Amino acid sequence: MDEKNFKTIQEIGFSKLIEKFESKTGKKRTDILTGIGDDASVARIENGKVVCTTSEIYLEGVHFDLTYTPFHHLGYKIVTAAVSDIYAMNAEPQQVLINLAIPNRYSVQMMEELYKGIDAAAKDYNVQITGGDSTASHQILAISVVCVGTAAEEDIVYRNGAKKDDVVCVTGDLGAALAGLRVLLREKKAWEETEGTSFQPDLEKYEYVVQRQLVPVARYDLINSFSELKIQPTSMIDITQGVVNELQFLGKRSNVGIEIFSPAIPISFETRNIADEMQEDVDKYAFYGGEDFEMLFTLAEENVEKLKTEFDDFTVIGKIESKEKQLSINTGEDRTIKIDLF
Amino acid sequence: MDEKNFKTIQEIGFSKLIEKFESKTGKKRTDILTGIGDDASVARIENGKVVCTTSEIYLEGVHFDLTYTPFHHLGYKIVTAAVSDIYAMNAEPQQVLINLAIPNRYSVQMMEELYKGIDAAAKDYNVQITGGDSTASHQILAISVVCVGTAAEEDIVYRNGAKKDDVVCVTGDLGAALAGLRVLLREKKAWEETEGTSFQPDLEKYEYVVQRQLVPVARYDLINSFSELKIQPTSMIDITQGVVNELQFLGKRSNVGIEIFSPAIPISFETRNIADEMQEDVDKYAFYGGEDFEMLFTLAEENVEKLKTEFDDFTVIGKIESKEKQLSINTGEDRTIKIDLF
Repeated sequence: MDEKNFKTIQEIGFSKLIEKFESKTGKKRTDILTGIGDDASVARIENGKVVCTTSEIYLEGVHFDLTYTPFHHLGYKIVTAAVSDIYAMNAEPQQVLINLAIPNRYSVQMMEELYKGIDAAAKDYNVQITGGDSTASHQILAISVVCVGTAAEEDIVYRNGAKKDDVVCVTGDLGAALAGLRVLLREKKAWEETEGTSFQPDLEKYEYVVQRQLVPVARYDLINSFSELKIQPTSMIDITQGVVNELQFLGKRSNVGIEIFSPAIPISFETRNIADEMQEDVDKYAFYGGEDFEMLFTLAEENVEKLKTEFDDFTVIGKIESKEKQLSINTGEDRTIKIDLF
Repeated sequence: MDEKNFKTIQEIGFSKLIEKFESKTGKKRTDILTGIGDDASVARIENGKVVCTTSEIYLEGVHFDLTYTPFHHLGYKIVTAAVSDIYAMNAEPQQVLINLAIPNRYSVQMMEELYKGIDAAAKDYNVQITGGDSTASHQILAISVVCVGTAAEEDIVYRNGAKKDDVVCVTGDLGAALAGLRVLLREKKAWEETEGTSFQPDLEKYEYVVQRQLVPVARYDLINSFSELKIQPTSMIDITQGVVNELQFLGKRSNVGIEIFSPAIPISFETRNIADEMQEDVDKYAFYGGEDFEMLFTLAEENVEKLKTEFDDFTVIGKIESKEKQLSINTGEDRTIKIDLF
């Protein structure tokens, strides 16, 4: 191939690459209500009933590291990540399909451990595993996961519904999964440096954040509360790439600005301690840390008190503004950081 | 890990491994009509409407070889394989989701070629691409593909409906995709042996079989004819792992025996020529060759003539028998090969 025709993906970045694919989506069907660009696709089946579908691919060494991830936890986590995308549409996950490509070095027992984690998560989230092909792989373990969920068409919550004066909320606390990852990577390094000795990592005092990294839980409790209280958030997205990233998506898709009051962002005591130990800024963990699987959602203000009657593990962190504001992060020290939306 | 606890997957085989997973499928839901074990899962959505879902994972060097597969063709083929599974349920494909994990050595242009093939196939099969994440990969290109289709619950055709005295049919001709692969592998070897010279493979005389390997077409024409004529096959499966393999699945799932008259199996002139060139038995190509994406189906006998009025690219190759017959292949020379069902 001609050298001037060889543009690396790094030069343009993955999000620009995905944009290039957006014009190559085959037949434009009227029964597809949303395609690429939300947590899951939405397809009309009949009479106001829709299905939401999401899929992911995970490669060993890129998306997970088996030196510190037990197979059981890996299985649990990939199911959590899949159902979380369906919950983020305010839909009910129904089935999960999983394909494995397995290299020789892994045993039957290891794959059974992986499947035990998948099974445990599927039970917790009330979904059935309906597809599960396994093939050989040369070098790395590769996994693909699909989740299909259902909802009434009118209940679906997209990323694009946030309106001026809505409040911006997040569940749980942020940055803990990244704090857990930092601990695991430090222990891995220590283990590598002492290989041959009887080094045993002491993870007990880091249990909360390690748990958040290895066995995250999708927030079905929030979705159930919405359903019981008949509250519909105006927009929603699950936090997998850091809250700043998700806010940029949400603002762009909803065509609004967002003001965040950063001291309000919930951060656990344990996450703060680890940032201190690592001599890092804990705000970076909370703003940019991925894989928390908490929910970011916007609500009409009058629904905040109503939601609290059933579900109180959420925090108001800001407000939807007009578009010119972009994403404004008020640090509470007379300083506002302005970030462009995607 | 304990050595006696390290059983390699090769020792038990992938189909036994998948069986082990069949007890680990999470919550058993009543709205899942079929899970693992057919071409696609079937989930009830509402009022007799179901969705069928299938997914696959493909790794470079394991499932495809980019030295002889143009990106455009690869894109077309992965969509064909996905929709073919949905057609095999007698359902209509609606949407396809694709995830790519891309190593550095591939350019933006190459990935655009891949997507052009995906787009072309999606248009041909009338489906929309509704998910398309792209991430980095260290070594190999990895692709996951999902297809979701819809049908009336009563129209779904499973693998388990074949009944004694039904006729067994296949569309098109068999073994051509394997013949094409043999040619491509021979040319690849020749190319490697002459590297540095101006070797150019001459594939023109092999066009039919190379096309069958690189750009297979899923048999929506058969499914459309069933729909127009209101014929429902009693069982159906697409031929991706060789017809003998698929017959074993079909017999096992339907709990019947099958008698095949092997001289009736349709084999193209071009496939026969290549087997001769390679000094191989053409029956092996037709029996065990994968990736033809033809359909294997069973019909009540009275429907054969009816189907022919609209669609004649199929051949009756045998008959459903009682279970004791297992899979009996009558070679037409007073010799019958008996093969156990799975």
